[in-house]
Amino acid sequence: MNAEIIAVGSEMLTPQRVDTNSLWLTEKLNDLGVEVTQKTIIGDDRGRLAAAVGAALDRVPLLIITGGLGPTEDDLTREAVAQALRRRLLFSQEICDWIEARFKRLGRQMSPNNRKQAFLIEGAEKLANPNGTAPGQWLDLPGGMVLILPGPPGEMKPMFESLCLPLLKERLPQSRIRTRFYRVSGMGESNLDALIAPIYKPYGNPVTTILAAEGDVQIHLRAQCDTDEEAEALAEELGSKILAALGDRVYSVDGSPLEAVVGALLKAKGATVAVAESATAGMLGARITQTPGSSEWFLGGFQVYGAAMKSKLLGVDEKVAQEDGVVSEAMAAAMAYKVRERSGATYALSITGEAGPESSSEGVEPGTVWIGVAGPEKVEAKVFKFPNGRERVRKFAVQTALNLLRLELL
Amino acid sequence: MNAEIIAVGSEMLTPQRVDTNSLWLTEKLNDLGVEVTQKTIIGDDRGRLAAAVGAALDRVPLLIITGGLGPTEDDLTREAVAQALRRRLLFSQEICDWIEARFKRLGRQMSPNNRKQAFLIEGAEKLANPNGTAPGQWLDLPGGMVLILPGPPGEMKPMFESLCLPLLKERLPQSRIRTRFYRVSGMGESNLDALIAPIYKPYGNPVTTILAAEGDVQIHLRAQCDTDEEAEALAEELGSKILAALGDRVYSVDGSPLEAVVGALLKAKGATVAVAESATAGMLGARITQTPGSSEWFLGGFQVYGAAMKSKLLGVDEKVAQEDGVVSEAMAAAMAYKVRERSGATYALSITGEAGPESSSEGVEPGTVWIGVAGPEKVEAKVFKFPNGRERVRKFAVQTALNLLRLELL
Repeated sequence: MNAEIIAVGSEMLTPQRVDTNSLWLTEKLNDLGVEVTQKTIIGDDRGRLAAAVGAALDRVPLLIITGGLGPTEDDLTREAVAQALRRRLLFSQEICDWIEARFKRLGRQMSPNNRKQAFLIEGAEKLANPNGTAPGQWLDLPGGMVLILPGPPGEMKPMFESLCLPLLKERLPQSRIRTRFYRVSGMGESNLDALIAPIYKPYGNPVTTILAAEGDVQIHLRAQCDTDEEAEALAEELGSKILAALGDRVYSVDGSPLEAVVGALLKAKGATVAVAESATAGMLGARITQTPGSSEWFLGGFQVYGAAMKSKLLGVDEKVAQEDGVVSEAMAAAMAYKVRERSGATYALSITGEAGPESSSEGVEPGTVWIGVAGPEKVEAKVFKFPNGRERVRKFAVQTALNLLRLELL
Repeated sequence: MNAEIIAVGSEMLTPQRVDTNSLWLTEKLNDLGVEVTQKTIIGDDRGRLAAAVGAALDRVPLLIITGGLGPTEDDLTREAVAQALRRRLLFSQEICDWIEARFKRLGRQMSPNNRKQAFLIEGAEKLANPNGTAPGQWLDLPGGMVLILPGPPGEMKPMFESLCLPLLKERLPQSRIRTRFYRVSGMGESNLDALIAPIYKPYGNPVTTILAAEGDVQIHLRAQCDTDEEAEALAEELGSKILAALGDRVYSVDGSPLEAVVGALLKAKGATVAVAESATAGMLGARITQTPGSSEWFLGGFQVYGAAMKSKLLGVDEKVAQEDGVVSEAMAAAMAYKVRERSGATYALSITGEAGPESSSEGVEPGTVWIGVAGPEKVEAKVFKFPNGRERVRKFAVQTALNLLRLELL
């Protein structure tokens, strides 16, 4: 089956903003065996949007529209789709009450503008939005389906995943696609590809895609066959070969991010971790605590950004900075040792480095980062040279620190 | 004048790739006073592309198409545009010789496939490509213009800049654009719009666009007139009215992010800041240090995520947690007071709250966050109830804490 996606919002016709919701949606649709054949980006213009909706529905049986469901006068998606389908908009007191209650819970008053979010296109099912005021809408038409979703990814994604996916699976012909998704840390994209290209190249099916972010490489396999069993067997055949070649460099086979994998390992051991962060100034702690329930394994730590803070807050001997420098093996080891001691955690991680853009006052080049790991038996520190770019260096450092702890815990 | 952009290529309909050529083109077009009213992304499919070209030319007088000019069988842009316009494709011996000579210069042989790059749509002008084998094409039609450009940015951009811009300037009516860009913190999108809609609605020009992220609302104004002076006067007229209505809620008029604005305020006063973070576990420190050079004003702080860490690392009296709870006014105030004292910073910020998804063990609802600000004269804490979503609550908390410090510094 083919689908189209329309992203609505004048801001996405400016030089500053690009639609990325459609990338995520495309992945979900592909997994259902649906191909995206066209994407349209259109401003907050009722006439143009209505025309685009009508034209898309002439071409494909599944249309997904994101954005333009907000409370302001710009937000015209409801009106435009109703116009395209020649249907009325019906006020829903139930939705209006729900929006009002949401504002109350937040201790605020509902603005009169928000009333327009309580209108449903005739015949549409409401898609509840636990993360915002705009409900989505699902329309079953004689020739197809229209899904209208909010623009903010934090609202759109949960709505699609929890409400639309189950409905789509019911309505779509059984898909014969099986996928594998591996996440790898501790090696770069080129080295990884050099290692596994001889394995996946002979296979036209599954299709192999490799994507890289800072310190994180993702491998996607997508097998498509006449039956589920064939697709599963093919995905498993290539997948197991790749897993065998990569060994413990694969940290996740179910999409879990590294901080969740490390959290699960700590929890299984009844262990805890604390951090001492210089260059990253809190990014590592922020990352570890992205996982709900992380207070079971994360205690806390020290943001020792200013040079003096390493002694003043954390209690590292001043001689370490004087003799070895603030970006040094001795400093990373002392920071990890000290925060483990002070917090009482089972493990501790430390990061000290120069993120750039300039070299440090001690002459350390941007990208140079020492990472320390302290455990019940030893304290170790390793040095890394990450590619340029301040935020990139910091993200690499956080990912690498988490991976060092993962390897220590295995 | 209005324009549309069509990006051609099946790879841009995968989950991995997004069209970014159109952002660059939009900026160039906006500078000429041309609005982009729709963007379409379409695969290497002749029928779909021809239909999209025809439909776009019914809507706008300027159509720019990028991609699909390569030598492979997938590359069908020339054929599709010819089909849409009902024109023939004519072989150009001159272009063919040029392509062959280019291959010779690179010490390679021209592949027979490359011959298809030597076809011009009847009536089109060739746009020379010094950076690749695919020439672009320029078509003047009775009702408008079609520009066909190669997909690789390194070929598309120089071709547009050196050949298309001068031709467009000749053909387009002169008009001038002036913009304003305000960033606002401390009020939501709906409330902001309710406040300023009566001011901007009477103006069709400038065009006003409002965008919102967690705790951050952006207002874009775009004035378009016959002369620079008129456009500047119009942007200034509406801009100054909006600024007057919003007062100190506007934190930036030059696009600077909030952490940079706060950093500049601290630096100007020769002041420093430290942080004590519970629910955000380091996000605030990480955010402040996104600004290069932030070691001039950011000292460091404490990640007191585990309940016991608030006393153990930071030294908050244990009675505060016992009597008031870890998410309380007293705790936020004590955390800010203590980290200011321990670090020696001029100001300190603290965050303690429940990010969710579950209520805290003390029964605090997700989204409830206390933020403390300590300065030379006083310590204060305020409570906020942010919308659901663990990362959202944390981002709102960080943005709000920075804004409280900004208001304190003003």
